[in-house]
Amino acid sequence: MSALLDPKAIDAQLGELDGWRLSQDRAAIEKSFTFRDFPAAFSFMTRVAFVAEKMNHHPNWTNVYNHVDVRLSTHDAGGLTIKDFGLAQAIDGIL
Amino acid sequence: MSALLDPKAIDAQLGELDGWRLSQDRAAIEKSFTFRDFPAAFSFMTRVAFVAEKMNHHPNWTNVYNHVDVRLSTHDAGGLTIKDFGLAQAIDGIL
Amino acid sequence: MSALLDPKAIDAQLGELDGWRLSQDRAAIEKSFTFRDFPAAFSFMTRVAFVAEKMNHHPNWTNVYNHVDVRLSTHDAGGLTIKDFGLAQAIDGIL
Amino acid sequence: MSALLDPKAIDAQLGELDGWRLSQDRAAIEKSFTFRDFPAAFSFMTRVAFVAEKMNHHPNWTNVYNHVDVRLSTHDAGGLTIKDFGLAQAIDGIL
Repeated sequence: MSALLDPKAIDAQLGELDGWRLSQDRAAIEKSFTFRDFPAAFSFMTRVAFVAEKMNHHPNWTNVYNHVDVRLSTHDAGGLTIKDFGLAQAIDGIL
Repeated sequence: MSALLDPKAIDAQLGELDGWRLSQDRAAIEKSFTFRDFPAAFSFMTRVAFVAEKMNHHPNWTNVYNHVDVRLSTHDAGGLTIKDFGLAQAIDGIL
Repeated sequence: MSALLDPKAIDAQLGELDGWRLSQDRAAIEKSFTFRDFPAAFSFMTRVAFVAEKMNHHPNWTNVYNHVDVRLSTHDAGGLTIKDFGLAQAIDGIL
Repeated sequence: MSALLDPKAIDAQLGELDGWRLSQDRAAIEKSFTFRDFPAAFSFMTRVAFVAEKMNHHPNWTNVYNHVDVRLSTHDAGGLTIKDFGLAQAIDGIL
């Protein structure tokens, strides 16, 4: 199991990312994506889904039409671990 | 644009469905689905996505691992229309 | 049912497209696509799939890892119709 | 790299599967699938795609509307290895 990151480590990791924000309870990072239309949004989700399944680390995400809100947290650990930042970077690498 | 359904019509339509519930504000219907694993959940979403795109009526849905929470409402109309029940039936027809 | 295009119309339509070639039997147009990896290829296919389903006109396609070979023809008409060129343009519009 | 299976091992593995046939050149196993419609076929492909990507072993497959022809072979090894039979079993496990 990955270890929970302390606040300093979280801030350092967040500094490497673009557009991700810490959730209010500091247990997750979040980012919202907007696409041209629903197929574009869903195809993005498909690519993320492959990455998530391969990393065995899955997002909590909501989709409405061309919007996708992604929330990453490590459920087992009860907060943010390095796996969340790894997945965040992989997601940004897709776009 | 589809017309808003009145409470009587909503109840009648709900009676035709299995496992869908009215949201607290009565502006949407909701159902939760659980699958074997993430790929099974996401493949279900893929099938729903095709139906939604073809009907040009899209769900508000959230996925976490093997769970999918679907919420249907007609945004333009500000509540439930026949389109929501059509999509609900199509979703149930997939499973 | 869409009408078969005559050779002149086919050439004119092909002239509007980039990278599509006529099959030897002149009954189809074909294009090969290469992507970074398998998830990129499959996500492309997902987007095309939405378009195809919405147009109710589906490709004959083969995928191996990061390659996708697309062949378009109108089965009912026994050759090329305007639907094939419409789908080809939609596919190119995705990339 | 997985080792090529000898004819005896191939026959033994094939005996464990249902509906898969050896290709004429004995370098691959093949199976054809038919679904209700295109979305059903493509959603099946989506599930297989997750498995394939996770195993890092990908099919050579062709789709036309509701048909999916799957061909499995281990390119690096130049023929059939245990990875092909593992993927075949995983595919059958999906249905």
